[in-house]
Amino acid sequence: MDKINVAEKFSLFSEHWSPKIAGELNGQMVKLVKFKGPFVWHHHENEDELFYVVKGSFDMHLRDKVVTSKEGEFIIIPRGVEHKPVAKEEVEIMLFEPASTLNTGNIENELTRKNLLRL
Amino acid sequence: MDKINVAEKFSLFSEHWSPKIAGELNGQMVKLVKFKGPFVWHHHENEDELFYVVKGSFDMHLRDKVVTSKEGEFIIIPRGVEHKPVAKEEVEIMLFEPASTLNTGNIENELTRKNLLRL
Repeated sequence: MDKINVAEKFSLFSEHWSPKIAGELNGQMVKLVKFKGPFVWHHHENEDELFYVVKGSFDMHLRDKVVTSKEGEFIIIPRGVEHKPVAKEEVEIMLFEPASTLNTGNIENELTRKNLLRL
Repeated sequence: MDKINVAEKFSLFSEHWSPKIAGELNGQMVKLVKFKGPFVWHHHENEDELFYVVKGSFDMHLRDKVVTSKEGEFIIIPRGVEHKPVAKEEVEIMLFEPASTLNTGNIENELTRKNLLRL
């Protein structure tokens, strides 16, 4: 049982759109991910997802609006809601979501990541 | 569905040891709390707890060691593990834990908080 330094964990990888596991509790995971550019529209059938911005900012596209979040802000996307994150510049995000959550939700394509690395 | 600015939410209250609800997902809650001074030894029978430091630093006393966490660091306390947070100076903490979690765990005393305010 030790503390986790989030910035230090972010320094261990550089790829985008590939969440890594930084912690686990109550069947939920804390994942760290770097976004850059546009992701794919998707939703999660059974999982709500929290995006907390550690560094930078990004736009969460929803079907009816765009929500920009910057450092120290978070947004929760409820299950079933279509969303598409877009980051003009690289952004560092801490995710809080069920262990079962797949990054591309209902879509499987070249961006899908399974068997996530533990930092 | 909108973003939450954590610093802005922290500016809405000043009391210590009284968690407020900032978000909810998957039966879990995001709570914001300010610590100052020593808390009480306790554990949670069925809940793991995550403490993420937004501002300041604090010591988590465990029965066999003390772990100091500062801004941008988090510590997860698994269910059943006795712990006692102590903050020399005021610290701002974001908690992730099940909605059912009581701040004083197995102890009920004057520090116990039920019916948490939603920010």
